Amino acid sequence: MKAFLPYIALVEDFFKSNLKSQAPHGLYDPITYIMGLGGKRLRPALLMASGELFGAKKEDLIQAAAAIELFHNFTLVHDDIMDEAPLRRGEETIHQKWDLNTGILSGDAMLIKSYQLFESYPAEVQVQLVQLFSKTALEVCEGQQYDVEFESQQNVKLAQYIKMISYKTAVLIAAALKMGAIIANASEKEQNQLYTFGLNLGIAFQIQDDYLDAFADPEKFGKQVGGDIVENKKTILVIKALEFASSDQEQELRNLLSTQSVDQDQKVATVKQLFVETGSADFTKSEVERYTKIAFDALSELQIETDKKKVLFDFAQELMVRDL
Amino acid sequence: MKAFLPYIALVEDFFKSNLKSQAPHGLYDPITYIMGLGGKRLRPALLMASGELFGAKKEDLIQAAAAIELFHNFTLVHDDIMDEAPLRRGEETIHQKWDLNTGILSGDAMLIKSYQLFESYPAEVQVQLVQLFSKTALEVCEGQQYDVEFESQQNVKLAQYIKMISYKTAVLIAAALKMGAIIANASEKEQNQLYTFGLNLGIAFQIQDDYLDAFADPEKFGKQVGGDIVENKKTILVIKALEFASSDQEQELRNLLSTQSVDQDQKVATVKQLFVETGSADFTKSEVERYTKIAFDALSELQIETDKKKVLFDFAQELMVRDL
Repeated sequence: MKAFLPYIALVEDFFKSNLKSQAPHGLYDPITYIMGLGGKRLRPALLMASGELFGAKKEDLIQAAAAIELFHNFTLVHDDIMDEAPLRRGEETIHQKWDLNTGILSGDAMLIKSYQLFESYPAEVQVQLVQLFSKTALEVCEGQQYDVEFESQQNVKLAQYIKMISYKTAVLIAAALKMGAIIANASEKEQNQLYTFGLNLGIAFQIQDDYLDAFADPEKFGKQVGGDIVENKKTILVIKALEFASSDQEQELRNLLSTQSVDQDQKVATVKQLFVETGSADFTKSEVERYTKIAFDALSELQIETDKKKVLFDFAQELMVRDL
Repeated sequence: MKAFLPYIALVEDFFKSNLKSQAPHGLYDPITYIMGLGGKRLRPALLMASGELFGAKKEDLIQAAAAIELFHNFTLVHDDIMDEAPLRRGEETIHQKWDLNTGILSGDAMLIKSYQLFESYPAEVQVQLVQLFSKTALEVCEGQQYDVEFESQQNVKLAQYIKMISYKTAVLIAAALKMGAIIANASEKEQNQLYTFGLNLGIAFQIQDDYLDAFADPEKFGKQVGGDIVENKKTILVIKALEFASSDQEQELRNLLSTQSVDQDQKVATVKQLFVETGSADFTKSEVERYTKIAFDALSELQIETDKKKVLFDFAQELMVRDL
C-alpha cells in the first residue's frame, strides 16, 4: 500500500525516538530489539488513515497508532513463548535470544507502555480510547485461548470459529480504525461503521487465509500449500466439511486428520478432495465474499467524499484480491 | 489489623461477585482460582482507609482497591513462573496446576482486567488513576528486573538497592494510598503526603525484613533465620558490610557468600558476626528507623484530625514493631 508509506515512516520514527536504550537494560533492550525488527505496521497505518478521513492531524494520531502496534507486538512476544517459536520476522524471538523470564517480563512492560501512550489525549477522549483498548486486549487473550482449546476439541462449531478468528485478529484491526475516528471526534455512528468495516474485513481475510492455505497456486503461494492440513488444524474448511459430510466421508476425514504418519502429499490431496466434494470449499469461498461485502458496504455507507475513502477501499481491495 | 476487616470483607465480596466462571474457562478459571486463595489484602485495605480519611465512600473506593489487588496478584502469577515456584499461599501456582501458557495468558488477562476496573470513575479522576497505575506497574516490572540483575552483579550500591526494593514493593503500597486520596478529591499536597508515607513505610519494612532474616529470635521468627545468608542474597546487610569491611573482612565475606558447600550453621554465624563487626547491622537498624520516621512524619504533617489518622498510624505501628 503506497498510500500507507507516510504513516509507516512516522511509526518507525516514533519508535526510534521513543524506545531508546535505558536501564534496566535487561527489561528495555528486548523491547527496542523486537520493535526494531519491523513489520507491516498495518494496524497503526489503518488508525491514521481512519483519523485523517475525519480531519485529524497525523501528530494527534501517532500516539494511539504506536500504542496499537506496541500492543500487537506484545501479543507476538507472549504468543511466541507459548508456541515455542524460535524465530519472528526471520530473527530470534526474545525468549530465544534472552530467556523465558525476559520474554514474560519485557512483554508485560510492553503492554503497560501501550496504555501509557494514550496519556497525551484529553481526558474525555483518553477514557474512550483506553476502554476500547482494554476490551479489545481482553478479546485478543480470549481468542488466543479459544484457539488453544479448539486444538483438543472434537466438534468446533462455525460460530465458535468465527468468534475465535474475530477475537484473535479482526477486533484489533477494527479497534485501530475506530480509534482514529474517536480521536478525530467522528460521530458514534461513523466510529461504528469503521469498526464494522475493520471487523468484517479481518474475518474475510482470515477465512481467505484458510482457503488459500489449501487451494492457492503453489507457484505463487509463499509457504507450503496444505500446511494446515498437514498440521491437522481445525480451519473453517475442516469444520464445514465435517458438517456437510456423509458418515463415510466424515469417518475418512476424521481418520486423516488424526494422524501424522501417512504420506503427506497423499493426505493433502485426499483432504482437499473431501473439502471440494462435501461443498466446504465452495461454502468457504462464499463466506469470504459475504464478509468482504459487509465490510465494503459499511465503508460505502459512510457519509464522506468518495475520494477521501479511496485509501481504505484500495487497502481492502489489495488485501482481498490476492492473485494466488 | 482489626480496623481493616470491613475493607477486607468488601474486597473478598467484590471478587466473589465479579470473578464468576465464564468462557473461555481455560483463561478465566485460573484467575478465579488464584484470587480465591486469599491473602492479606493489605493494598486494597490501605487504599480504602486512605480514601475514607478524606470522606470518600467505600462503594466509590472498592473498584480501585480491587484493581490494585488484582494487579498485585498478576505480578505474583508471572513472578511464580519466573521463580519456578510450585506453591503460593500453600496451594499450587497457576503454571503448576495448569501449565506455563495458562500462567502467562491468564496473567496477561489479569493485568488488562485491572485497568478495566478503573472505568467506573469520572473521566478526570480516571485518567489520574490510570496514569499513576501505569507508572507504578512499570516500576514494579523494573524492580523485578533489577532484582534479577543484582544476583549476578558483584557490587550493588545502596542507592540501587533502595531503588530496587522501592520499585518491587513500596511504590504499589504508596500508589494504593495515593489513589484513595485521588478518588476522595484530596489536594495534590495531601495525595503526595500519603504517597510519601506509603513509600517510606514500604522501604522501612523491606529493610527490616532483611535485618530480621539474620537477627530475629529463631523461636519467634516464622521461617529459618539466616535464609538469605544461605541463599547468598545481596541484602542491605551484605551491601553495607562489603562497603564498611577491611580488605580481610571483605575477602572473607565474599568467599563465604560465593559458596554453598560449607557448613550452613557455621556460615550463618560467621556472616552474622561480620555484619555486626563491620557496623552493617547497626547501620541497617538505623536505616529502618530513619525510613520509618520519614513515613510517620509525612502522616503527622497531614492536616487531618488525629483520630481519623489513627487507623494508618496503628497500621504502621503494627507493621514495624514486630516482636521478633
